[in-house]
Amino acid sequence: MGTLHDVFNARSVAVVGASASPDKTGHTILRNIIDGGYAGSIYPVNPKAETILGLKCYPTLTAIPGSLDLVVVVVPAKFVPDLIDEGGRKGVKAAVVISGGFGEIGNGDLENQLKAAAARHGVRVIGPNCQGFNYTPNKLCATWPLVKSGGSIAVISQSGTVAAAMAMWAAEEDLGVSGVVALGNKCDVSELDLVEYFAGDPNTRSIALYIEGIRDGQAFMKLMRSVGGRKPVVILKPGRTEKGKKAVASHTHSIAGSDEVFQGVCRQLRLARASDVTELYDFTKAFGSLRRPGGRKMLVVTSSGGSGILATDTAEQCGIDVAALDDRTKEELKKVLPGNCVIGNPLDLTGDADAARYRTAVETAARTSGADFFFLIFGDPIPGAAEVVQSLRATIPQEIIVCYLGGGETEAIEVRKMHRGGIPVFPTPERGVKAVGALLASHTSERS
Amino acid sequence: MGTLHDVFNARSVAVVGASASPDKTGHTILRNIIDGGYAGSIYPVNPKAETILGLKCYPTLTAIPGSLDLVVVVVPAKFVPDLIDEGGRKGVKAAVVISGGFGEIGNGDLENQLKAAAARHGVRVIGPNCQGFNYTPNKLCATWPLVKSGGSIAVISQSGTVAAAMAMWAAEEDLGVSGVVALGNKCDVSELDLVEYFAGDPNTRSIALYIEGIRDGQAFMKLMRSVGGRKPVVILKPGRTEKGKKAVASHTHSIAGSDEVFQGVCRQLRLARASDVTELYDFTKAFGSLRRPGGRKMLVVTSSGGSGILATDTAEQCGIDVAALDDRTKEELKKVLPGNCVIGNPLDLTGDADAARYRTAVETAARTSGADFFFLIFGDPIPGAAEVVQSLRATIPQEIIVCYLGGGETEAIEVRKMHRGGIPVFPTPERGVKAVGALLASHTSERS
Repeated sequence: MGTLHDVFNARSVAVVGASASPDKTGHTILRNIIDGGYAGSIYPVNPKAETILGLKCYPTLTAIPGSLDLVVVVVPAKFVPDLIDEGGRKGVKAAVVISGGFGEIGNGDLENQLKAAAARHGVRVIGPNCQGFNYTPNKLCATWPLVKSGGSIAVISQSGTVAAAMAMWAAEEDLGVSGVVALGNKCDVSELDLVEYFAGDPNTRSIALYIEGIRDGQAFMKLMRSVGGRKPVVILKPGRTEKGKKAVASHTHSIAGSDEVFQGVCRQLRLARASDVTELYDFTKAFGSLRRPGGRKMLVVTSSGGSGILATDTAEQCGIDVAALDDRTKEELKKVLPGNCVIGNPLDLTGDADAARYRTAVETAARTSGADFFFLIFGDPIPGAAEVVQSLRATIPQEIIVCYLGGGETEAIEVRKMHRGGIPVFPTPERGVKAVGALLASHTSERS
Repeated sequence: MGTLHDVFNARSVAVVGASASPDKTGHTILRNIIDGGYAGSIYPVNPKAETILGLKCYPTLTAIPGSLDLVVVVVPAKFVPDLIDEGGRKGVKAAVVISGGFGEIGNGDLENQLKAAAARHGVRVIGPNCQGFNYTPNKLCATWPLVKSGGSIAVISQSGTVAAAMAMWAAEEDLGVSGVVALGNKCDVSELDLVEYFAGDPNTRSIALYIEGIRDGQAFMKLMRSVGGRKPVVILKPGRTEKGKKAVASHTHSIAGSDEVFQGVCRQLRLARASDVTELYDFTKAFGSLRRPGGRKMLVVTSSGGSGILATDTAEQCGIDVAALDDRTKEELKKVLPGNCVIGNPLDLTGDADAARYRTAVETAARTSGADFFFLIFGDPIPGAAEVVQSLRATIPQEIIVCYLGGGETEAIEVRKMHRGGIPVFPTPERGVKAVGALLASHTSERS
C-alpha cells in the first residue's frame, strides 16, 4: 500500500508519455526532473523512442528493470486505468496523473475506472488532470516551471497556475519552497491528505492552500483544528461572489458554498484567510519564518517618513497598535540618535540612516518601549541591513518584520541575504503590515 | 526667470558638494548623472578636489566657464542661500536642493532665506530636503537609484522612497518612467506646478502623485479639473487614520485633513485614488498605456480556471460585469475551439492552450459577444503571447488587459516583450482587474 511519503520521497520515477519534442508536456516534465537534480532512477517510457534527453527509454512499465516507486502519467486518458493496473502489478506505490480528459469533461466513468485500478493495487494517485508536484528536499520537480530553490513553504492548490506562480515568486525571491502540489480532480489524494502530510513534514513550516470547494466540512474542520496549532495554514478560497461561485462550479465542479459560513469557520478556527493570491503568498511567507508577536504593540523604525505613514495607516486598519513612545524611551533614544531623527512612532531615522543606526535604535527601544514587535523599513540603499537584522533577531526578545523598498542594487543584495538567512522581507509597507496582521490573528504558537 | 522646463531639459548641470567618496550622496548623484548618459555639460563643484569621477572639478559656481542651467545642491544647509545667490548672479535657472536641515527640523528662517534668494534671481527651486529628480528624455538622473529606462509614467512624490520604489519597479519590469520628482519641503516648486508641467509633457502619459497634505484645496481642485481630462493622475494620500494623520504631521508638517472630504473630492473630480503604493503603481501603469473601455462588460479569457475565478470575484467587487455569453457567441466559439475548452465567461481555454487559441477566441468573441473589453490571463508558459496581443490590439475595437502568471521563463520573455511594446501586464488577476476598475472609474477620455 503506497503512501504520500512514497510520492514525495520516491527513489525511482517513470515518466509515461515521455517525449523528445520540446513543446510536449511529456518532455517538459522529464527535463525538469533531470534538470532539478533528482538523484533517484529516472525511466522515460515511450514505445517509439530508444532514448530521450540522453536516458534509455522503455516501451512499458513492465519492461523497467527492478522496483519502481512512482509513475508520472502524461498519456491520453483512455490508457490511464490499464496503466495503473500494470503499475500496480509491478509494485508501483504512487502515480501522478497529469493527463486530462476525465471527470472534468464529463468522463466520470473513466475516472472511476482509474480510481478502481488504484484501489485494487493500493496505488496512491494525485490528479488526474493536474499539473504535478515538486518536492525540493528530494529534488523531484515533476511539474513546471522548474523550481529548484528549497524553502519552508508548501503549496497545495486546486489551480496549477496558482501553485506555479507561488513557486516562481518564492524562487525569484530566493526564498524557495518545500513542496508544491496541484490537486487536479482529486480522485484519490485530497487537500486534506496533503495538509496532513505537510503538517508532519519537517521540511515545511507553513502551508498555502488554494481551494475552490470543501467536500466534507466536518473532516475539514477536524483536520484544521488538529493541524492549525502545529503548523500554520493560509487559505485562499474564491467564490466569494455569485459569479465567482458560478465560475467555481464550471472549473472544478466544486460547490463554493456560503462565503459567510466559510468565513465563520476560519474565524472560529483562527485560520489565516487570504483575500487574494498576493496575500496567500505574503502570509505563507510570514508564517514560514516569523514567530507570532506576543501582543499588538508595533514600533515602526524607518528611514523613510512616507513609508512609516503608510505602515501606520495600514496598521490602524488591521487593529495593530502603533502606540506612542513613553517619555523614558524618548529620552533614551534622544541620547543615542542624531538630532535630525524624529523620535516617535514611527521612529524616523531619516534618509541618511545607516544600518548601525537601526541597530542602536532597536536595541535601545527593545529595552524600554514595551513594543511587542518591530517593523523595520529600509527605504534607501542601506548596506549591512541584513547583518543588523540577523544579529538583532538573535539578541532581542521581540520579533522583527522587515520591509525594504527604493534601495536599488543595495536593496537587491540585502533582500537576497535576508531571504537566504530565513528572514522574510516585504516589498511595501502595506504588504508587510498585513502579513503581521495575519500572524496576530492566527493561533499559531508564539515560537513556531 | 527659470521655469520647470529648465529643470527637466537643462543643457548643463553643476553638482555642488560633489564627492570622491562612494558613500556620499554627492558622489552617488554625480555618478548617476554620468552613468545615466546625460549629454549636457556636467560640472562637479568642490574646492578640495581637482577631478571627481574623471571630470574637472570647480571650486565655485562662478568659476564654471560659460552658462549654467541647473545646480544640484548637496552641501550643508547653512551654505545654501548664499549658493543660490551666487548661482542667480551667474544666470542659473533652477536648483535642486537635496540638502536637509531647513524647515523640517525647525530651521524655518534658513528656508526663508533660501526662498528669498531664489525669488531675487528668479531661480526655480525643487526641495530643499528632497531626493532629487530623474527625467529620462534628457537622460538626467539627479537622484538615486539610477534608473535609465524611459517610459510614459511620471512620479511626483512627497516621499523620496516612494518615488524611488516606483521608478525601480518600472525599470525592473522594462516599463520605465518619463520623470520622477521628490518634492521635499516645497519651498518653491509644488506638486501642483509639477502636475501642470507633466500634464503638458509629451513624454508623459500618466502621473502618479504621492502627497501627504494639500495646502490650497481650491487651487488643487481647479488644477485637477483642468488636467484630469487631458492626462490621468493617480493619487496616493495617506493619513486615512488618526495615527496616520499624526505621522503625517511629524513627517512633513502637512495637515492630512479629513479623509472623507478628500475622498469626496476624488469622487467628484473622478480622480483615481490608490489605497496603497502597489495600487499607485498598478493604476499609473494602466493609465500610461490603456484606453478606458467604453463600458463595464468584461470577457475573461484564460488558460487557468482558478485565475479566471479570482478575476471574476474581484470584478464583481469592483462593479465590473462578467456577463454571461449569449447563445450565438457560444455557438461561434464552439465551432472554432477544441472540445475541452469551457465555453462561458470566464472562457477557459484550458492548460494546453497556445497563443493561437487566444487569437481565435478573442477574434470570434470580439465580433458578437458585446464585451466592452477583454481580460486575458496567460496562466501557463505560452510562447507568442506578446505577438498575439499586439496584433489583436491593432485589429479589434475593444481594449485588452493582460495578466501573466505561473509561466516560468516563457512568462519573463513574453512580459518583457509586451512591456517594451507598451502593453502593461499585471502579475495577478486581482491586481489587473483592480487596475481596470480604476480606468473605468476615471474620466479620462476613451482614447487617451
